[in-house]
Amino acid sequence: MKAERIVLAQHPTGMPGHDDLRLEHFKLPSPGAGEVSLRTIYLSLDPYMRGRMSPAKSYAAGVKIGDSITAECVSEVIESNHPAFMPGDIVLGRSNWQTHSVLAGAELRKLDPALAPVSTALGVLGMPGFTAYVGLKVHGTPTPGETVAVSAAAGAVGQIVGQLAKLWGCRAVGIAGGPDKCSLVTDTFGFDACVDYKAKDFSDSLARACPDGIDVYFDNVAGDVLMAILPLMNEFGRIPVCGVIAYYNLEKLQREGPDFSPLIMRSILTRKLRVHGFINYDHMECMDDFLNEIPPLVRNGAIKYVEDVVQGFDNTVEAFQGLLTGKYTGKVLVQVADDPTK
Amino acid sequence: MKAERIVLAQHPTGMPGHDDLRLEHFKLPSPGAGEVSLRTIYLSLDPYMRGRMSPAKSYAAGVKIGDSITAECVSEVIESNHPAFMPGDIVLGRSNWQTHSVLAGAELRKLDPALAPVSTALGVLGMPGFTAYVGLKVHGTPTPGETVAVSAAAGAVGQIVGQLAKLWGCRAVGIAGGPDKCSLVTDTFGFDACVDYKAKDFSDSLARACPDGIDVYFDNVAGDVLMAILPLMNEFGRIPVCGVIAYYNLEKLQREGPDFSPLIMRSILTRKLRVHGFINYDHMECMDDFLNEIPPLVRNGAIKYVEDVVQGFDNTVEAFQGLLTGKYTGKVLVQVADDPTK
Repeated sequence: MKAERIVLAQHPTGMPGHDDLRLEHFKLPSPGAGEVSLRTIYLSLDPYMRGRMSPAKSYAAGVKIGDSITAECVSEVIESNHPAFMPGDIVLGRSNWQTHSVLAGAELRKLDPALAPVSTALGVLGMPGFTAYVGLKVHGTPTPGETVAVSAAAGAVGQIVGQLAKLWGCRAVGIAGGPDKCSLVTDTFGFDACVDYKAKDFSDSLARACPDGIDVYFDNVAGDVLMAILPLMNEFGRIPVCGVIAYYNLEKLQREGPDFSPLIMRSILTRKLRVHGFINYDHMECMDDFLNEIPPLVRNGAIKYVEDVVQGFDNTVEAFQGLLTGKYTGKVLVQVADDPTK
Repeated sequence: MKAERIVLAQHPTGMPGHDDLRLEHFKLPSPGAGEVSLRTIYLSLDPYMRGRMSPAKSYAAGVKIGDSITAECVSEVIESNHPAFMPGDIVLGRSNWQTHSVLAGAELRKLDPALAPVSTALGVLGMPGFTAYVGLKVHGTPTPGETVAVSAAAGAVGQIVGQLAKLWGCRAVGIAGGPDKCSLVTDTFGFDACVDYKAKDFSDSLARACPDGIDVYFDNVAGDVLMAILPLMNEFGRIPVCGVIAYYNLEKLQREGPDFSPLIMRSILTRKLRVHGFINYDHMECMDDFLNEIPPLVRNGAIKYVEDVVQGFDNTVEAFQGLLTGKYTGKVLVQVADDPTK
């Protein structure tokens, strides 16, 4: 069967483009014993993928030149050599930026379209939702009455962080780019406040939005937003570090000055902060709790979610660029084929 | 009684000098009810005092203009209106940079010269030793076989951190300035290695000294040493932040670039580090354990200590400057009067 995939042609410097990420055709093999062939419906785009494209050490081995970019996908089963799946089933699996794939049935999870739209398996009920849950609960350890701030607040993870903070009795303050995202964060997601980091008076607005300081800052971006947050952190504050989007396109681990390391380290010392980098898959022991607590709240509307679905596999690279520049709102997906459950 | 003290004349910019720290004479009042008058024998000098001299927010309120600099002191009782003390007793108390003081008896602890030299109450058996103990145990959480690195390794805190790491089954790697300090760290304190941060090949030497990476970095300095440490940190590494000596003389919380914040934040994220600022007095619940575990090890020689005693109250300001520039080795004390127990 003819299929398309996007492979890493070279390590990008700065913003990845078509020279770095090359579309190519390939012949999909037939599924072997225990395997299933799949048509991708939704492809998940996530900021961490930028790190995988770099040669620098990150969570995991980077993508090799010539390989496709790893991504979670919701797919439809075409042909199955695994007893748990039959053609037409909708499944969640770890595939690549490709229109079709062959995966081991043992590594797929069947989705029930009656319980929730299948795309949510890549968002609020998937890794972004789980990331928000473990980052806030395990590393943020918020207690009722505290102030929780989160950057990229309209994004896939941020929107859930703030809603969980509210559900857990905290004041939730979002940071997002532009008035539209900020309105979404307060009006749809119910945060107490949202501050536009692109506005001139950002630092002052942030201080006004956090009259009692900040106890937990869930960091998705680092960079200038972090530098505005640090002076507001309360003693014994916690900073779960989930992403450093501001630095993803840097070629080196330094940039032009001024050097903010004194601000970072002195804040950590004198305010006795706990700053903790984490990645969701180190906390799989929390998955049962997540699956017990969160899906009912999504079904009854207590937790809202917003997706931004880009149509067409050909637009994947542009969609990824848009993700890194904050073009989209909410969980970013590429729709590669029609969703038969809709 | 005539006495001398050093007061904050103005907030220093950069290295504090005599224009900032002014010696003045004052008349010591007679002790009131429950109070004790004291002759200072040993005055403790510690890097954190630099923070107190700045107007910026730190652990505690800064020293006010015109006030003397707070310091722990070992003193001899001159006159006592408190039943627990009599003239000639040697006591530990929180006083100031002054030759004599009047303190509430309730806030003094009597020292027994038969158990240990009384100066150790300001060092290995006092706050520096306790700082090393709680920072490493509570925030470093080392396990046997791990590598523990510590900066300012010949200093009052660092020398104890490495020795505790060894006693707790870890590889101990010190970072210190110059070959003399490095020899002391390995030969006297028994660290497995010590790397000279002033040497040209510092980063390479550090990497060679840590063949299995670094699991715990006890940070007393931040700055360039931290930037060399970060690329060597293992996944799930811990960084107790005890001091930021490299930044103490900065006027602002930024300095000339390059900006190392991408290195700091990306290392925290991708290596899943836990970075934790702390101050000893938030952990007084550990004091009983400290007093049970450490004094016997000092008495039987399992824990060594080195003090650098500067003679004469008139030299306090120069001694403090020397402390900030790494001139001294070990715990820095000013001997203000003869030690009658010697």
